[in-house]
Amino acid sequence: MNHKKRLKVVVIGGGSSYTPELVEGLIKRRHELPIKDLYLVDIESGREKLEIVGALAKRMVEKAGADIRIHLTMDRAEAIRDADFVTTQLRVGQLEARGRDERIPLKYNRIGQETTGAGGFAKALRTIPVILDICKEMEQLAPDAYLLNFTNPAGIVTEAALKYSKIRTIGLCNLPIGIKMQIGEFYGVEASRVDIEMIGINHLNWTTRILIDGVDVSESFLDKAAGAKGLTMKNISDLEWDGQFLQSLGALPCSYHRYFYMKDAMLAEQLEDLETQGTRADVVKQVEAELFELYKDPNLAIKPPQLEQRGGAYYSEVAVNLMTSIYNNKKDIQTVNVRNNGIIPFLPDEVSVEVNSIIDADGAHPIQLGKQVGPEIRGLLQLVKAYEELTVEAAVHGDLKAALQALTIHPLVGDAEIAQSILNDILEQNREYLPQFQS
Amino acid sequence: MNHKKRLKVVVIGGGSSYTPELVEGLIKRRHELPIKDLYLVDIESGREKLEIVGALAKRMVEKAGADIRIHLTMDRAEAIRDADFVTTQLRVGQLEARGRDERIPLKYNRIGQETTGAGGFAKALRTIPVILDICKEMEQLAPDAYLLNFTNPAGIVTEAALKYSKIRTIGLCNLPIGIKMQIGEFYGVEASRVDIEMIGINHLNWTTRILIDGVDVSESFLDKAAGAKGLTMKNISDLEWDGQFLQSLGALPCSYHRYFYMKDAMLAEQLEDLETQGTRADVVKQVEAELFELYKDPNLAIKPPQLEQRGGAYYSEVAVNLMTSIYNNKKDIQTVNVRNNGIIPFLPDEVSVEVNSIIDADGAHPIQLGKQVGPEIRGLLQLVKAYEELTVEAAVHGDLKAALQALTIHPLVGDAEIAQSILNDILEQNREYLPQFQS
Amino acid sequence: MNHKKRLKVVVIGGGSSYTPELVEGLIKRRHELPIKDLYLVDIESGREKLEIVGALAKRMVEKAGADIRIHLTMDRAEAIRDADFVTTQLRVGQLEARGRDERIPLKYNRIGQETTGAGGFAKALRTIPVILDICKEMEQLAPDAYLLNFTNPAGIVTEAALKYSKIRTIGLCNLPIGIKMQIGEFYGVEASRVDIEMIGINHLNWTTRILIDGVDVSESFLDKAAGAKGLTMKNISDLEWDGQFLQSLGALPCSYHRYFYMKDAMLAEQLEDLETQGTRADVVKQVEAELFELYKDPNLAIKPPQLEQRGGAYYSEVAVNLMTSIYNNKKDIQTVNVRNNGIIPFLPDEVSVEVNSIIDADGAHPIQLGKQVGPEIRGLLQLVKAYEELTVEAAVHGDLKAALQALTIHPLVGDAEIAQSILNDILEQNREYLPQFQS
Amino acid sequence: MNHKKRLKVVVIGGGSSYTPELVEGLIKRRHELPIKDLYLVDIESGREKLEIVGALAKRMVEKAGADIRIHLTMDRAEAIRDADFVTTQLRVGQLEARGRDERIPLKYNRIGQETTGAGGFAKALRTIPVILDICKEMEQLAPDAYLLNFTNPAGIVTEAALKYSKIRTIGLCNLPIGIKMQIGEFYGVEASRVDIEMIGINHLNWTTRILIDGVDVSESFLDKAAGAKGLTMKNISDLEWDGQFLQSLGALPCSYHRYFYMKDAMLAEQLEDLETQGTRADVVKQVEAELFELYKDPNLAIKPPQLEQRGGAYYSEVAVNLMTSIYNNKKDIQTVNVRNNGIIPFLPDEVSVEVNSIIDADGAHPIQLGKQVGPEIRGLLQLVKAYEELTVEAAVHGDLKAALQALTIHPLVGDAEIAQSILNDILEQNREYLPQFQS
Repeated sequence: MNHKKRLKVVVIGGGSSYTPELVEGLIKRRHELPIKDLYLVDIESGREKLEIVGALAKRMVEKAGADIRIHLTMDRAEAIRDADFVTTQLRVGQLEARGRDERIPLKYNRIGQETTGAGGFAKALRTIPVILDICKEMEQLAPDAYLLNFTNPAGIVTEAALKYSKIRTIGLCNLPIGIKMQIGEFYGVEASRVDIEMIGINHLNWTTRILIDGVDVSESFLDKAAGAKGLTMKNISDLEWDGQFLQSLGALPCSYHRYFYMKDAMLAEQLEDLETQGTRADVVKQVEAELFELYKDPNLAIKPPQLEQRGGAYYSEVAVNLMTSIYNNKKDIQTVNVRNNGIIPFLPDEVSVEVNSIIDADGAHPIQLGKQVGPEIRGLLQLVKAYEELTVEAAVHGDLKAALQALTIHPLVGDAEIAQSILNDILEQNREYLPQFQS
Repeated sequence: MNHKKRLKVVVIGGGSSYTPELVEGLIKRRHELPIKDLYLVDIESGREKLEIVGALAKRMVEKAGADIRIHLTMDRAEAIRDADFVTTQLRVGQLEARGRDERIPLKYNRIGQETTGAGGFAKALRTIPVILDICKEMEQLAPDAYLLNFTNPAGIVTEAALKYSKIRTIGLCNLPIGIKMQIGEFYGVEASRVDIEMIGINHLNWTTRILIDGVDVSESFLDKAAGAKGLTMKNISDLEWDGQFLQSLGALPCSYHRYFYMKDAMLAEQLEDLETQGTRADVVKQVEAELFELYKDPNLAIKPPQLEQRGGAYYSEVAVNLMTSIYNNKKDIQTVNVRNNGIIPFLPDEVSVEVNSIIDADGAHPIQLGKQVGPEIRGLLQLVKAYEELTVEAAVHGDLKAALQALTIHPLVGDAEIAQSILNDILEQNREYLPQFQS
Repeated sequence: MNHKKRLKVVVIGGGSSYTPELVEGLIKRRHELPIKDLYLVDIESGREKLEIVGALAKRMVEKAGADIRIHLTMDRAEAIRDADFVTTQLRVGQLEARGRDERIPLKYNRIGQETTGAGGFAKALRTIPVILDICKEMEQLAPDAYLLNFTNPAGIVTEAALKYSKIRTIGLCNLPIGIKMQIGEFYGVEASRVDIEMIGINHLNWTTRILIDGVDVSESFLDKAAGAKGLTMKNISDLEWDGQFLQSLGALPCSYHRYFYMKDAMLAEQLEDLETQGTRADVVKQVEAELFELYKDPNLAIKPPQLEQRGGAYYSEVAVNLMTSIYNNKKDIQTVNVRNNGIIPFLPDEVSVEVNSIIDADGAHPIQLGKQVGPEIRGLLQLVKAYEELTVEAAVHGDLKAALQALTIHPLVGDAEIAQSILNDILEQNREYLPQFQS
Repeated sequence: MNHKKRLKVVVIGGGSSYTPELVEGLIKRRHELPIKDLYLVDIESGREKLEIVGALAKRMVEKAGADIRIHLTMDRAEAIRDADFVTTQLRVGQLEARGRDERIPLKYNRIGQETTGAGGFAKALRTIPVILDICKEMEQLAPDAYLLNFTNPAGIVTEAALKYSKIRTIGLCNLPIGIKMQIGEFYGVEASRVDIEMIGINHLNWTTRILIDGVDVSESFLDKAAGAKGLTMKNISDLEWDGQFLQSLGALPCSYHRYFYMKDAMLAEQLEDLETQGTRADVVKQVEAELFELYKDPNLAIKPPQLEQRGGAYYSEVAVNLMTSIYNNKKDIQTVNVRNNGIIPFLPDEVSVEVNSIIDADGAHPIQLGKQVGPEIRGLLQLVKAYEELTVEAAVHGDLKAALQALTIHPLVGDAEIAQSILNDILEQNREYLPQFQS
C-alpha cells in the first residue's frame, strides 16, 4: 500500500449504531491514517438509520476540524470502487433475525446465542452470501483493497472469504484487545505493557501466555484469575471460573467459553431470562432505539458516552489500529483472524484462526505460537473448527448435508434429531435471507 | 514367531463367562493353532467362577479329543512366563463396579455407559493400572509375547499399553467383525465376500466403504441402511438411523454412535430403564448367574447356546483369527486397535486407532485408508480421541487435572461443573481400585 | 472388477522384444486370469517388429492350447475400447533416443543412464505426453480399466498419470521382486518365504526390512550382504557394497543406488565403456536384433531362453501377478508405484512412491511402513523426489523453468550451468518427440 | 529479562580479531543496552591475542567515556556466572585447522569450504563439543542467560545446542542483514526501507520476497539481479548469477549457494587458487597478522577501518541488535537461527532454521512465511538439512555411521567412497580436537 496517498474507506452497514465509535477513532488517528473519503453504505431498509448516523458523523468530523468527507449511499458498488479499505459491520435481517436465532435453540433446550451454536450457525447462513457478493464486487472494482470483516460470526465469515475469494481479508474482533485490557486492569498496569498469546478461533480463544513487560506471569495469573469478576465481555453473563478448573486447563478461556464449559448453568440462565426479559436481541433493540434517539439530537457532535454500554468496546480501536499498521507498514503485533497455514498445527491449513500476527503493508503474518497446548484444548478446538468448516460449506453451497452435520456435531447441539429440528426451523424462519437453499 | 513350536496361551480373567466361547474356538482351530498349554488366570475373589469355567473347559477339550492342557491358576506371573499370547478379558471391580459406572452419570442427567462417556472413563481408571502391571510382568517373563487386549474400554486400555510398555499389544473388539457379518446378512451373502473399511477408534468407528466381491456398494448401502433394524450390537438399543442423517454423514456409524448422535433419546431410554429394570449391569448380572448355573452341570461339555445371548458374539473368532494369522504369518486383513502412526492423518501418531491391518508373524500393519472423510467425522473423532489421551494420562499418573479435563470435554458430559461432580463420585466410589490417585 | 467376465488386455508397445515373456506368463496363469482378447498395439514405424512378435505370440498360444485371441493393431483407440487392463511398455524414439540420452550427460562428465539422472529426465520428457494421451483415450473408451505402467522412468511416468488423469494407474517394476528373489537365493530359501519392506521410489528404493518366514533377519543380512555379488540388476555394473557403508546406512540399497553412492566409480566405468563398447543402448540394440532373428523362426513357439539375458527378469511375473490379484480380489502384498498419501510421511501426498501394497479388486492399497528411516535415507529421497516432481511439471506443461531446476538439483547433475547445457542438448536432439516445448 | 538491570555480557573467543567491531557496537548503543561488565574469555593458547585485543577494547571504552568494565579472563566459568548474554565467536583449532578443512576435500576434487561441505562438517565436529560444554556451564551458572551463537557452521552448532541443552540459544549470522543492505544499495534506498523474507538454513538461504516500503518488488528484482555484481559476501567468489537461472528459481540465492549451483566453476577456481595463493585460511592468516599489528598500537582507541576488509561486516550490528531487542522487549523483526517447529513445514520440527522472527524479552518467535516454495528449493533444503542432522549426531555422540552418511549425502561430496576417505583424513588430522571419537 502506497503510504503517501490519502485513503478511501468504506463501511458496509454504515447505519449501525456502532458507527460513531468508528468515526471517533478515525478522527483521533487522522494524522497517522489520512482518510479523504469515508463511505457509509447501507441498504434501502436501513436508509433512516443511515441518515441519522451519517448526520452525526458529519457533525463529529466538522466539530473536530477533520478533513474527511463523509458519503452516505445505498450504492455499494460505487462506494467500493477504488477503495483502500472496506469494513463490514452489517447485520442481515437486523435484530429481528437475531431474536429468532436466539429463540429457536432454546425451544429445544439448547443454548441460543448470536455467534456460536445454532444461533451463530443461522447468522452465518444469512451473512456469508452477502459477504461473498461484496468480495466479488471488490474483485471487480477494488482488487487491491483489504476487506476488514467485523461481521459475526467473524471467524466463519472470514473463512468463507478466505476460501472463496482472492480479496485480502482479515477478520477482526474486539475480544482479544478486551482481554489484554482486562489483564492490564487486573495487574494495575497499562495495557501497552501487557503481551498475551492466544490460541484458537474467533470467540473460542484460549489465552495461553501472559507477559508483563516481557516477563511471563502466566502461572501466577491462573491462580489469581479463579473467581475474579471482570474477565468477560459486556454481553456475556459474568459467571466466575472455578480455580481448580482453570488450573487443570492451564489457560484463560475467553468469555464465550462459558457456553461450553458452563453449559448447564448458562442454559438455565438463558431460559430464565427468556421468561423475564426476552432474548438478548430484545435487550439490544431497546438500547439501540435509545441510542438513535440520542443520535438525532442536532447538537450532538461527539460519540455519546451511552454507546459504551452497547458492548462494542474497543471496536473502533481494533479497526483503526489495523488500518494504521497496514498503511504505515508498522510491523506491530495484533490478534486477528487469518488463514491458518500451519500456525495451529493440528488444524487444517485453509481454515481461519485467531492469532497474534505482524501487521505490515503486506497484511497480517501470524507468529509462531510459543506454547503448545494439550488434548484438553486441541480436541474442543478441532471439533468446533470442524463445525465451522461444515457451516462455510453449507452457507456457500446451500448444502443441506453439511448443514445437518454442522449442527449435529456442535457441542451446543450434539444430537442429530435435535439438529434436524433446529435446521428445519432456521430454514423456515430465514427463507428470505437464504437464497442459496432455494432451488 | 516360530511357527513350528506349540503354543502357550494365557487368558487373564479366565473365570469370565465368555471363556467357553474362546475355548470352543481354540478347539475348532487347533490344527492351525497348535496350543499345548492354555492358562486360565484369575484373582482370588474370582476363584469359584474360575473353577466352574475351568472344569467346563476341561470337559470341552476332553470331549473334542484336543491335545490342549488346561491350567487354572491365581499365579499370574507363573502363567505369563514364556507365554506366546496373553489375552486379557478381566473386569476390575466386577459387575458391581460397572453398575456404579452406569449410575453415577445418570444422577447428573448424563449417559451412563460401560465403555464410553463417564462410565467408560471410570472403567479405564480402574483397568489401566492392572494392564500395565501385566505388561511389566510380560517385559520380565515373556518379552516377545503378544498382548491381545479385549478389556474395555479397549481403545484406551490398548493406547496405555502402547504408550507405556514395549510389549507388542494389539487391541481387539468384536464390533468390526459384527458389522461385517451384519452387512453380509443384509445383502444375503457370506461374510467372506464382504470387505469393509473403517475409520475411527474403538467403539467410535465409521464404516466408510463396503465392498461385495470387491465391488464398492457403499452408496447404495446407505440408502438401504436407513431405518433398517439389526445394524447394532446386542447390548445397545436398536434405534433406527434416519435416512437423511445417514446420507449427510456418508458412512455407517457403529452402534455406539447412538450415544452421540441420538443422545437425547438414549438418555431418556436409560433413565426409564433405570426405573424399571435397573442398569445394564443389573441385567448382565442375572444373565451371568444363569450361565454359571449351566456351566456347573458336569454333563455339559460344549459351549451352551445361551452364551450367545450374552453379547459377545464373534469374540472367540476375533481372538483366534488374530492368533492364527500371527502364528502362520498369514497376511490377511483384520480390523484391530494399533498405534496410529499417520494412518488417520488428523490424529496424533502415538494414539490407538481401530483400522484394517495386515496380520503377519510380525504383528499388525495398518493399511492406508482408501476413503478420506470430511469435518463431520474428523471433528468428533478428534475430540473423543483427545478425551482418550487425557484419560490415559489420568489413569497412568493419577493426574486429577487430566481427569477433570477429560470428563469436561467428552461430548456425553460437556460441562466443567458436572464433570467435577462426576469425577468426585467416581473417585469416592472406586477408592479401592484407584491406587494411582492415593497419595 | 467383475471376476466372472473374461478379460480384454491391451499391451501398448506390443512389438517389444519383451512381449513373448508376457505372453508366456499369461498362458501359464490363464486359469486364474481368463483372457479372451489380447491386443498388441504399436505405431506404424514398429509394424515390422509387431508382426514378428505377434506371430510368435500366436504360435505360443496355439501350442499351449490356450483360448486367447491375439490381435495386432496400429489402432490404439480401437484396442483400448472396453479394455480391462492396459499395460504400457512403449519406448518413444526407440533405442536411438536411448543412446542419445546416455551420451549427452557423459559429454559433460555426468552419469548417462536410461532411467535416472539427465538420461531418465530426457526419457520422461518424451514419454509423459504419450502416456497422458493414452490416459485421455482410456477416460473416453475404458474409464474403469486399470493402466499398468511399466514404461520408464516408471515412477515419474506413473506420477504424471496419477496427477493428470483419473484413470486408475499402478506403476510396475521388476526390481522389487528381483530383490526378493535374490534374497531368497542368498538364504537358500524359496522367495515365497521371504518378505521385504521397501521405502522409496522407483529405482531409488531401500530395503529396510527382510523377514524369512516372518522372522526379521535384517540386521544379520547387512553383515552378510557386504561385498556379496549378485545383489544387482542385469543391466547395472555389479560393484560390491562396502560393509561399513551398508552398516551405516542400515538398509540394502537397490542396484540403481550405485549411481548415487558410487558416482565416481560408475562414471569412470561409463566413460571407459563408451570408448570400448559404446553405450548400453548400443549393447541392447545388438541383443534385440539377435532376439528378433530368433523370433522370426516359424518353428519357435515358446519364449526363447535367450530373452532372459535381456534384463527384464520377472517382468511377466510382475504384470500377471498384479492383474491376477485385481481380477480375483486376492488381497495379497505386492510392491508397486502408487500415490503416496502419507505412507512415506516426509514426502508430499500427491507423489508416486514404490511400497508394499495390498492388491484387491479395488486396486493397490499401501501398507504402513514398519520401520522408520533416518535423515540418511530421508534427505536423498526427498531431493530426488523433488527432481521428479519438477520433471513431471516440465514434461506436462513444457515448462523450461521446471526443466532447468529439475536437472540442476538432481544429484547426478548438481550444477546449474551444466544443467543448462544438458537441457539445451536434450531439447535439440529430441525436438520431434517434445511437442510440449514447441510454442 | 528485567530491563532495569545493567547487564553482564560474555564473549567466548574474546581474543578474536573481530572483537573491536563488537566493542564499537556496544559503545555506540550503550544507552539502549546498558552493559556493566563485558567479559572477554579465551583459552590459554590465545592469551597473547586476548591481551592485545583486550587492551584495545579498554582504550576504546575509555576514549568513548562509556561506563563499561572490560574483563579479560581464561576462567570461562567465572565469566559465565550470572551472565545475561553469552556470545560465542570461538574457533577450535584456529586457522591451522581451517586450512586443513579446506585442503582435505580439494585432495579428492571436492569443494573445500569453511562452513559447508566436508570442511564445514569437520569444523562442526570440533566445535559442537565445546559449545555443549559452554551450555552445561550455563545451565549451572547462568540458566536464564541467552546463548548467542556466531560460531560456524552456525546453523549446525545452534541445532546441537537447541537439541542437547535447555539454554535459550539463538544462532546469528551477518549474511541476512548483508543481503538486506545489498538490496538497499541496489535500489538506492536505506536498508530500513527494505524488508526481505528468507527461507532456509544458515548459509543456504533463499530470499523469496523483497519489499521496498512494504511494496513487493520481488519479480522485478530477479530480472535486475541477473548478472549484477555485489550480491555476495566478501569471502566468496563473486560469480554472476545467470538470468534464466534466477528466473527459473524464483528467488535470490545466497552467496554460499554458488558452491551448490556453480559447483564446477567454484571447484575449478578453488583448485587454481590453491596453487597460486593457498587456501582462504592462508589469506585470512595474513590479514589477521596485520590486524593484530595494528591493534598493538597504544595510540589506537577506535576500531581500525582495515577490520572491515576481514569479511565480518555487520557482525557487531547483528549481535547488538539482538541483545537490544531482547533487553528492551522491542518486538522487531530479525533473521535468526531458531528451532523450526513447523515454520518451514517440510523440515522436521526440531531442527534449526534461519527465518524472520519477532525478537522480544522472551526470545525469538518465527513469523509465518508469506511465500511457499516449490520442489526446486524444497528438495535441496531437505537434503542439506538431513546432512546437518546427521552431522549433529556424529558430533555429539562420536557416531561414525552418522558421520559417513552425512558426508556421503552432502551434495558437495555425493559419493560413499570419497566420503569415507575424507572422513578418515578429517579424523586423522583433527585427533586432538575430537574427544567424542576417542573410545
